[in-house]
Amino acid sequence: MDRAALIADLSARFGPRAVITDRALIAPWLSDWRGRYHGAADAILAPATAREAAAMVAAAHAAGVALVPQGGNTSMVGGATPPEDGSALIISTRRMTSVRHIAADHAVAEAGVVLQTFHEAAAARGLRFPLTLGAKGSATLGGLASTNAGGTQVLRFGTMRSLVLGVEAVLPDGSMIDTIAPLRKDTRGYDLRHLLVGAEGTLGLITALSLRLIPAIGARTVAWAGVAGPADALALLRRMEAGGGEAIESFEIIPGDSLALVLAHVPGARSPLAGTHPWHVLIEAVSADAGDPPQAMVERLLSEALAAGLIADAAIAKSEAEAEAFWHLRDSLSAAERAAGPAVQHDIAVPVEAMPAFMVDAARAAEARFPGTHATAFGHLGDGNVHFHVRAAPGADAAAFHAGQAAEITRFVHDAVIAAGGTISAEHGIGQMKLAELARVEAPARLKALIAIKRAIDPLGLMNPGKLVPLAPGDIGP
Amino acid sequence: MDRAALIADLSARFGPRAVITDRALIAPWLSDWRGRYHGAADAILAPATAREAAAMVAAAHAAGVALVPQGGNTSMVGGATPPEDGSALIISTRRMTSVRHIAADHAVAEAGVVLQTFHEAAAARGLRFPLTLGAKGSATLGGLASTNAGGTQVLRFGTMRSLVLGVEAVLPDGSMIDTIAPLRKDTRGYDLRHLLVGAEGTLGLITALSLRLIPAIGARTVAWAGVAGPADALALLRRMEAGGGEAIESFEIIPGDSLALVLAHVPGARSPLAGTHPWHVLIEAVSADAGDPPQAMVERLLSEALAAGLIADAAIAKSEAEAEAFWHLRDSLSAAERAAGPAVQHDIAVPVEAMPAFMVDAARAAEARFPGTHATAFGHLGDGNVHFHVRAAPGADAAAFHAGQAAEITRFVHDAVIAAGGTISAEHGIGQMKLAELARVEAPARLKALIAIKRAIDPLGLMNPGKLVPLAPGDIGP
Repeated sequence: MDRAALIADLSARFGPRAVITDRALIAPWLSDWRGRYHGAADAILAPATAREAAAMVAAAHAAGVALVPQGGNTSMVGGATPPEDGSALIISTRRMTSVRHIAADHAVAEAGVVLQTFHEAAAARGLRFPLTLGAKGSATLGGLASTNAGGTQVLRFGTMRSLVLGVEAVLPDGSMIDTIAPLRKDTRGYDLRHLLVGAEGTLGLITALSLRLIPAIGARTVAWAGVAGPADALALLRRMEAGGGEAIESFEIIPGDSLALVLAHVPGARSPLAGTHPWHVLIEAVSADAGDPPQAMVERLLSEALAAGLIADAAIAKSEAEAEAFWHLRDSLSAAERAAGPAVQHDIAVPVEAMPAFMVDAARAAEARFPGTHATAFGHLGDGNVHFHVRAAPGADAAAFHAGQAAEITRFVHDAVIAAGGTISAEHGIGQMKLAELARVEAPARLKALIAIKRAIDPLGLMNPGKLVPLAPGDIGP
Repeated sequence: MDRAALIADLSARFGPRAVITDRALIAPWLSDWRGRYHGAADAILAPATAREAAAMVAAAHAAGVALVPQGGNTSMVGGATPPEDGSALIISTRRMTSVRHIAADHAVAEAGVVLQTFHEAAAARGLRFPLTLGAKGSATLGGLASTNAGGTQVLRFGTMRSLVLGVEAVLPDGSMIDTIAPLRKDTRGYDLRHLLVGAEGTLGLITALSLRLIPAIGARTVAWAGVAGPADALALLRRMEAGGGEAIESFEIIPGDSLALVLAHVPGARSPLAGTHPWHVLIEAVSADAGDPPQAMVERLLSEALAAGLIADAAIAKSEAEAEAFWHLRDSLSAAERAAGPAVQHDIAVPVEAMPAFMVDAARAAEARFPGTHATAFGHLGDGNVHFHVRAAPGADAAAFHAGQAAEITRFVHDAVIAAGGTISAEHGIGQMKLAELARVEAPARLKALIAIKRAIDPLGLMNPGKLVPLAPGDIGP
């Protein structure tokens, strides 16, 4: 059966809502949200249930037609964009949006549930799903799990992987894996759950998840401090962890010049501190008890840090509105950086202890190697994960920069990351964007293992072809 | 090269400490510690370094000789016992016992480090590795990771899997995977770390681990309460989590009649409560601050629970010695149960919310189906993991019971577990013991995936043959 016959067959079986062929309706889903990757697809399959999804995948498998799983289409690496040659169909989780069940410690939700909707469903029960990120209004649970997403609240509860208690998925041949029951302990063989999490849809389609929920935040204290550099920032984090235990939920680092860009870029934005500082940190501590915010603890720890010379100044948000304003400064960093000129961005991680030196040394080395550029690193210091941006020399043409120097800069940054024992993808995934770089920097034994696993679970290469696994052309595929 | 030639070759290359062929020295490592499984092996390979281990595995691979990884040999499922036919050699991590590095938030340690030694190394730095279990004096980090071990402190920090930040391992062909750098975020392809954790040595040999460390406990409060049943116990846990947040580290449930066995079995043991109760719970709460134990919080929450009728009585340990005495009662359960007569034990998990009903209903059903038996469940209620024991009718012959009724009882219990969405292995693994049961109860799609992964990474079937993956005889293998 060819692709057209498959579409006709699925249309007849599942109806027009489940098989979208209107080009105008398909078009918005053929490119990534930043407009960097463009593909083609004759249809979007939109199963209403996991069972329908399994039937569709089985039919595509029988027909030898590739499928590209898609959630909110918020990938940072072109992970949900179909191939350009139109050989694949999109399979979207948009109609699988039910929160099936909420219990005291977990919820079972379908892959197409949008993160913000899930936050609200948990909050309505006095509970919380602790992972959050900028795209929460569009990103879906299935996509977040498939990329093992991170965000700003990873310090305490981990990435998506550590919040997934169970998975329901359709494998490439259309068979279903039902390990959706939320088990806290499970040692019956290789952990397929952890193989599907972070697989970017290349081993199957996640249709539902059991996700950990925790008690809602009772009260939070948000603080801002000026520090001399990343090493002092990390020493401050260690002090706060030792004194505040698990109460510290976020610890973000922001360069002084990036803050200046934000203050210039965001109307009405004000710095939390009176003076200027080379670096800043944003700290959030929480408590379960609404009547007992961790403010006294944060104040005490910051006072001690001030006395010890670890920080130069600090401010604690006096209201929830001010806390939001602090966070808005942090959340505006990427946009402000973008507005400042063309830049090449890197989502990288190194061991936490190695991060302070890396931030300073790698930025200095990149600027020396590429004269006129400005390198800056900001973000999740406590996770060992920063967004490392290298901005083109002032006045550079964006198109020329991206077509020319950007790739060379990326290889330079990635080499530094590998030398520091790090990863070229911390929380965005590999997708299409980092495929060549993964093949370039990864150890042969690991690459061989990735390919072996892909071949084992998807021998026909039908699930999200051209993503995550650096296969030689024609290695496997429809 | 045959097995004898391989041994001679490795002896010549690595010397007598690295290749043990003295039968008297090998003998203790040919059976599991409970004496249920017995194997044969002509040599124990004991590499001193990961590099030596890789060379040995490569040589065995070239010779087509199977290897059985062994740590402390404390498997509960025969996971480290070589095959009876003597076709495999043991490869032991006993000489890889270096704690390479301890930092504020993690340590890098070799696979052969014994858990208790690792606890002590962390404690000497004011830090803590939060996982603990009965075999801590023998069990090694490599074995604990390979079985994704649990224990009594999983509630807050998770099983071994969630504590592993990095892995160094030798794959079946002798190639090395070095992802030992402790990365908090990493999305570069399928997570081989999570594939090796829990793989029971069937995909390779873990040689070193990066493991999460946390600040040492400042102070703890240990409490004991009498409850009417598992449902009230779980309601108590939820209340304590809501009121005490992450402070609650352990929550163990103990049937009243099992406690009675312990009191009769352990010289000098005393019940923490004056009266008798149908069920008991042991609770541990911790704080980071040595000067500020969570006692007031625990007292308040238990008082509220008493007022609400959730518990019948409670006691808080008045000293560290009394806290230890409370824990000793819990830790003596298995021995006391064993002393009471032959029993068949099951390490099972179901979703936490389903556990109270399961504990009561499955025990009642087992006793009805097998008249004269006594079924009891105890342990990690907060993890949804209990040890489910079915004791033979009084006066039963142990050998006859294990040879006869035990297998039927196990199938009955496992069927109930599967019906409740659970797993037949919560924290002990599959090994040899549960291989047939895994094949019997597991969904075909999952079994197929397990086998495909084994074939992909170990196509010759040389790593820990006959464990974890239910392969047909002769399916793959040397």
